[in-house]
Amino acid sequence: MRALGDRRVRQTDGACFVEGIRAVCEALDAGLPFEAVLLCGERLRSTVALAAIERLRAAGVPCVDLPPSRFARLSDMDNPVGLAAIVRWAPGELADLAPPAPEDLYVVAEDLGDPGNLGTLLRTADGAGVAAVVVAGGGTDAGHRRCLRSSLGTAFRLPLVRADEPGEAIAWAGAAGVVTIGTSAHAAPSVWEAEVPEHTALAVVVGNEERGLRQETAAACDIAVRIPMLGSATSLNVAVATGIVLYELRRRRPPAAGRRP
Amino acid sequence: MRALGDRRVRQTDGACFVEGIRAVCEALDAGLPFEAVLLCGERLRSTVALAAIERLRAAGVPCVDLPPSRFARLSDMDNPVGLAAIVRWAPGELADLAPPAPEDLYVVAEDLGDPGNLGTLLRTADGAGVAAVVVAGGGTDAGHRRCLRSSLGTAFRLPLVRADEPGEAIAWAGAAGVVTIGTSAHAAPSVWEAEVPEHTALAVVVGNEERGLRQETAAACDIAVRIPMLGSATSLNVAVATGIVLYELRRRRPPAAGRRP
Repeated sequence: MRALGDRRVRQTDGACFVEGIRAVCEALDAGLPFEAVLLCGERLRSTVALAAIERLRAAGVPCVDLPPSRFARLSDMDNPVGLAAIVRWAPGELADLAPPAPEDLYVVAEDLGDPGNLGTLLRTADGAGVAAVVVAGGGTDAGHRRCLRSSLGTAFRLPLVRADEPGEAIAWAGAAGVVTIGTSAHAAPSVWEAEVPEHTALAVVVGNEERGLRQETAAACDIAVRIPMLGSATSLNVAVATGIVLYELRRRRPPAAGRRP
Repeated sequence: MRALGDRRVRQTDGACFVEGIRAVCEALDAGLPFEAVLLCGERLRSTVALAAIERLRAAGVPCVDLPPSRFARLSDMDNPVGLAAIVRWAPGELADLAPPAPEDLYVVAEDLGDPGNLGTLLRTADGAGVAAVVVAGGGTDAGHRRCLRSSLGTAFRLPLVRADEPGEAIAWAGAAGVVTIGTSAHAAPSVWEAEVPEHTALAVVVGNEERGLRQETAAACDIAVRIPMLGSATSLNVAVATGIVLYELRRRRPPAAGRRP
């Protein structure tokens, strides 16, 4: 379990550590294979959680009940709810992505540093009904326990792939006919004014929390848009910025009927 | 300093504990009175931070240089940068708010539980150029150190007031002619379709991360809007949701020329 704190181990093993009722239940509902459940029976009261444990136990998954002090040591929640699991899951590869449909939206998240931000971004992308998220470059990865928790388990539901080099994600978009939209504080047209092609898949490309997009990534994007900053700060949180751009694009192109609930 | 971890002490003393270079510099630029600066000279390398300390020292503010181990104990950052301060600041009262102008936007944030979320919400509200934020009800307060940090110091720049009872905020809006817009997963019109009055100040009202708005607050709002959820999750992070609604309203009503940079 401790080894899964290491990004390389997560990727090589294809496994991750999930904590929290919502995230564990999403992993179960997504049909992921469970290796083990760690629980704190003394603490866990949620009927939803207890029902999930029953299902997992019936399926032969080992469920280890720990005393509160031991559970608290493996938890990184302020108030541990008493449910965690080791689950077989890792992001896929760009080659796994289905061909884009004309109204599809994508997100490429480059070099994000904070796992909580990446998780909130995934939850936001899920809300906007994106076709997939590409986690590109260095920084945190989607298998980080804090990312999985703040994604509320949407990480397990979204088509989610990684690209070690952001350039691979841009090249994939080019080859697949997906128009890339980079966010920049200096871009001329605002997200409200920017003209984007209709009936063409689009990818919103966002960068590191401090530094924004890498220069070469910004230069490689087809379109640049700016979110107007009308106060004293010069930028928004990356998940908030992604949500504003995605929902503005979604306003202009509701998802094709029947493709999503 | 430890006493400022208590919300009641912060409110009674009218002081707060700020950590991080950006937040401390914003407090300085906002002209707030400093009581003390805590720094770790061994760790602090930022020229911006060192210049700020020089300005404060010249103004007679006591600056205490701590060894890394002692600074780490008062910090709650993973990698402490080595700069913190005690600053005289607390949110104001509803009665302090200036009369609304017709194109003004406000946010009322009710019962938010997580200080990081409240800080990100403030940063977002600042970006959208709101006239003020009302922090209403229980939960966290804007003086919490994690809120101040994740707000990037915008908490010190924004007109920011508190209302112990959310009903007071709704009553203020009614009396000031501000139309309230509650966010709800069940509202009929989406944020894209909702009709809102032109040339009338508007307040976006958002609720607790888990429970959403209190029933009586939702019922008291003039308009209800829904953010379409097109994936598996049933809600967005509260700061992301606030950003999507604020920027959609701002799209329809650019800020009056000259009122904001």
